Amino acid sequence: MPANFKKIVQEIPAHVSHLFDKGRVADYIPALACIPADKFGFSLLTATGDRFETGDCQERFSIQSISKVFTLSLAMGYAKEELWSRVGREPSGSKFNSLVQLEYEKGKPRNPFINAGSIVVCDVLVSHLKNPRQALLDYMRVLSGSFDIDFDEVVAKSEAETGFINKALANFLKGNGNLENDVEEVLDLYFHQCSIAISCHELASASLHLANHGNSNTLKESVLTPSQVKRVNSLMLTCGLYDAVGEFAFRVGLPAKSGVGGGIIGILPGEYSVAVWSPGLDPSGNSLAGGAALEYLTTITSKSVF
Amino acid sequence: MPANFKKIVQEIPAHVSHLFDKGRVADYIPALACIPADKFGFSLLTATGDRFETGDCQERFSIQSISKVFTLSLAMGYAKEELWSRVGREPSGSKFNSLVQLEYEKGKPRNPFINAGSIVVCDVLVSHLKNPRQALLDYMRVLSGSFDIDFDEVVAKSEAETGFINKALANFLKGNGNLENDVEEVLDLYFHQCSIAISCHELASASLHLANHGNSNTLKESVLTPSQVKRVNSLMLTCGLYDAVGEFAFRVGLPAKSGVGGGIIGILPGEYSVAVWSPGLDPSGNSLAGGAALEYLTTITSKSVF
Amino acid sequence: MPANFKKIVQEIPAHVSHLFDKGRVADYIPALACIPADKFGFSLLTATGDRFETGDCQERFSIQSISKVFTLSLAMGYAKEELWSRVGREPSGSKFNSLVQLEYEKGKPRNPFINAGSIVVCDVLVSHLKNPRQALLDYMRVLSGSFDIDFDEVVAKSEAETGFINKALANFLKGNGNLENDVEEVLDLYFHQCSIAISCHELASASLHLANHGNSNTLKESVLTPSQVKRVNSLMLTCGLYDAVGEFAFRVGLPAKSGVGGGIIGILPGEYSVAVWSPGLDPSGNSLAGGAALEYLTTITSKSVF
Amino acid sequence: MPANFKKIVQEIPAHVSHLFDKGRVADYIPALACIPADKFGFSLLTATGDRFETGDCQERFSIQSISKVFTLSLAMGYAKEELWSRVGREPSGSKFNSLVQLEYEKGKPRNPFINAGSIVVCDVLVSHLKNPRQALLDYMRVLSGSFDIDFDEVVAKSEAETGFINKALANFLKGNGNLENDVEEVLDLYFHQCSIAISCHELASASLHLANHGNSNTLKESVLTPSQVKRVNSLMLTCGLYDAVGEFAFRVGLPAKSGVGGGIIGILPGEYSVAVWSPGLDPSGNSLAGGAALEYLTTITSKSVF
Repeated sequence: MPANFKKIVQEIPAHVSHLFDKGRVADYIPALACIPADKFGFSLLTATGDRFETGDCQERFSIQSISKVFTLSLAMGYAKEELWSRVGREPSGSKFNSLVQLEYEKGKPRNPFINAGSIVVCDVLVSHLKNPRQALLDYMRVLSGSFDIDFDEVVAKSEAETGFINKALANFLKGNGNLENDVEEVLDLYFHQCSIAISCHELASASLHLANHGNSNTLKESVLTPSQVKRVNSLMLTCGLYDAVGEFAFRVGLPAKSGVGGGIIGILPGEYSVAVWSPGLDPSGNSLAGGAALEYLTTITSKSVF
Repeated sequence: MPANFKKIVQEIPAHVSHLFDKGRVADYIPALACIPADKFGFSLLTATGDRFETGDCQERFSIQSISKVFTLSLAMGYAKEELWSRVGREPSGSKFNSLVQLEYEKGKPRNPFINAGSIVVCDVLVSHLKNPRQALLDYMRVLSGSFDIDFDEVVAKSEAETGFINKALANFLKGNGNLENDVEEVLDLYFHQCSIAISCHELASASLHLANHGNSNTLKESVLTPSQVKRVNSLMLTCGLYDAVGEFAFRVGLPAKSGVGGGIIGILPGEYSVAVWSPGLDPSGNSLAGGAALEYLTTITSKSVF
Repeated sequence: MPANFKKIVQEIPAHVSHLFDKGRVADYIPALACIPADKFGFSLLTATGDRFETGDCQERFSIQSISKVFTLSLAMGYAKEELWSRVGREPSGSKFNSLVQLEYEKGKPRNPFINAGSIVVCDVLVSHLKNPRQALLDYMRVLSGSFDIDFDEVVAKSEAETGFINKALANFLKGNGNLENDVEEVLDLYFHQCSIAISCHELASASLHLANHGNSNTLKESVLTPSQVKRVNSLMLTCGLYDAVGEFAFRVGLPAKSGVGGGIIGILPGEYSVAVWSPGLDPSGNSLAGGAALEYLTTITSKSVF
Repeated sequence: MPANFKKIVQEIPAHVSHLFDKGRVADYIPALACIPADKFGFSLLTATGDRFETGDCQERFSIQSISKVFTLSLAMGYAKEELWSRVGREPSGSKFNSLVQLEYEKGKPRNPFINAGSIVVCDVLVSHLKNPRQALLDYMRVLSGSFDIDFDEVVAKSEAETGFINKALANFLKGNGNLENDVEEVLDLYFHQCSIAISCHELASASLHLANHGNSNTLKESVLTPSQVKRVNSLMLTCGLYDAVGEFAFRVGLPAKSGVGGGIIGILPGEYSVAVWSPGLDPSGNSLAGGAALEYLTTITSKSVF
């Protein structure tokens, strides 16, 4: 099997490069708009520690919504079941930043991967941690083994300056009693989590515990319990791809989380974690060539969760 | 007829006083919660200049949403038709602070009397005026003839501190391109308009132009054109009473605007303006005894718009 | 004043004829699609019995949603307050045939002039009357003084054959426990009420009681109490013009009800009833030239409810 | 492993029997309301043909919404990609019979497992088959190897008599151009599919192809292609459990489909199909003890898709 991965991963760029200019690079902030559309990175890390990667796999890009997996993972350790009284665990059937469902459901976000849900997760971290920004950085650094991972302050500032809908969501949560801390303080963490600069290589490492029953390849202790891993993976499969969850489950068949920076992480439980990056997005906001790369991977290996 | 008004107005308190303790005084900010429920003021001013009033008609209370009529009236002079490309003129069928319809209609509020619509009206004033807060005060002072009308800064501060849903609305408008100015600056005007302390006597004066083809009893020039008066009055009748527009139109039959401070202004076009104040609210947020007083007035005189 | 009406009414066609081909004739059923767009009728009847009319005022057309006023008026005599536990009295802020609000509000239609509300009104008539179709015809005949008013069975059949959304509404009401009778039986009455063929002359007569404190010019007894008249008129003003209630209130300023057959009735309480017909519709489904004619009338006479 | 299954399956009733009287047996039709709450059946069939079962596994019950999997599977052979232009493939975030999303999305149901989506699937079958009811029976009989599987006409009749919301959905679809055939004809198939009486033993057999790359244990030819199997399984995981998709994915971790008759089928791709039956439902409408049984199975075996 490892031998196959080597060949498969090497062939991936040739199979998806025709899509590089078919997607649309996110342009709502300058720092994202200027990324060349032909960047492509791919890194796969098996539970047994083998690594297969190609392209710009060492180049850092903006993690964006993929960070929601890591803040959730970090918050689960602090908030336990209390968290789920404040955030649901069901797919939303709505746009990631919709206020409609949030209003009908009185300020309880549908799940932790839509923006409102992730803002509540950030609130949990602000409540429990003295320096939540630093704690998140430390968490990413330890999990990835890269101790210079950092926020991109230019991105964070742009997010804050243009993030009116996220401000609307946070204020709406506060007005409905589902935010313990100051709106600005919570949003500061939220905008910073989105700004983390990270590579496919680092993302695959940071995600490995989700493919390995909670165990990372950098820490002796478990990161999450097997039950928590199941929670995160099932949430990724049912809620991780904006409004294309069903389509992605069919085509790729992996628990996954995407970001508008063009990254996607995927998990084959018990087998591997994988990270891919291509900046051009499809209409749902998921990396076009990134999704195709993962589809190629699970199709050629005949292995997905289905 | 004036003779009748005198007797009718004197009798009103006796007809509605049993309702004083049946409503619920607004308690979302301390400054409103402490108002005694048995306060009652009433002031009617005819187009010919006769005044009939009773009770606490000289005591000032918090104008709250009634102010939306005056900021609209003020903004109509500056923004003209441009205003209506940014705010609709139809009843909303939703709660006054709902985000649902606003999202479906992409950030264009249904009318200028729901919170989102009034925030856009405030934005227009901020765009056109150097000192919009002072301009609004001057407008109220001139129209009412009371030159010491002022903001209640304690109320304004409380509104700002608890107004998360309004902050959500303003940020949502900004995120949808329907707010020209800084969110904080616009909300500062919005929260201040709601905090104006004013009496029934003063409100009846300030509203008279809506009953008198645009002419006030304090100014030589018209305040509004007859067509603009028709616009404001028709908006009050179809959108002025939160989610009880239809019921109020039937029971009272006057263009009217209420506020959670317990005040209501009403207009019988060509005949009179009227202001009433009783702090206890019905479930829709309209003054319970205030509505009953206006119903008594139009029933006993057999004169309403219907 | 009567002298003025004569001249004004004569001049109306010249003022609005440029709009005849600007609207869109309803084409969802063949019987409506074939009506010439340049038909125009107008009939005004004062409370004192004077009549002023012009154009095709004696030609019958399809009453469509205007009939909802008459079934409501008829049902109010039978159902009294019970009716209002099943139908609301507030503007809807939604399309006339929307199911969204109906689902959120658990099968209680917002008002009796949206389709769902009128279906409930028809259900009331089916519950209380042995032969509701005949009773409705008799009602229209007596009120108008035209004893050959009848259903257009071709229209009724077409309505039934294409009325899937109305069938959806009726079944949804039934599934929510807000329909006492058989769905088919209620819809049969609903589709028939819409098919009544009637002229402007007859409509003005049939509506006169709404302008005259409940008294028609054909019956010795009152048709409605003054309170019921106020109810119907206030509902027309706040809910009678589909999604253009606010705009119509401003431009015309009369309680009114329109139908997609191109007819509109209007009421100036205490003064007159008026009916106008021009088949071309504006995007909201209201007669384009019909609305302009009523606007001309209230503007030139300087008399509306505002 | 087979040895383990034997012991595990035998132990299941003891682990879940305390839940039998904690759920609520569906009571909207008499035929369901009278089923004893302590019925419990369980049948697991491995891809290699081993069978492990317990309790009332041979007793037939009402298949209800589980049938939607089989009509979808049958229709996929006829409609191919055309089907997906009429039905979406994403979770709905709404109640299974909601009209709200259907109206906002103009009559295109979110997925084939909500009622509206399954009605469209039935319409496809009516369009392509001379006798769709018989074809569905034949399909179930061949897949299960039980040639006396049949509709329960008492249930089908009750469904039709009380199915007003489904009639609303079908008429709404028709009114939006997303139903080719007569509403009554399509609903006849829909209500009949729900009425099929079938046992856990038979359901496990009928579902085996979904666990076995498209191959049943009764037919030489494949039932579905591997790609179609992936489609059905991914739809079950993301849309198969009403409004508890996310929770079920976490707790059980299998593609699954439930019905209000108390049945659930589950698939571990490449390993086994399983069917469980316990009539008491949780608030989401899924079998309470049935869900617990599947959770026990995947937990004790440490095997799910996550």
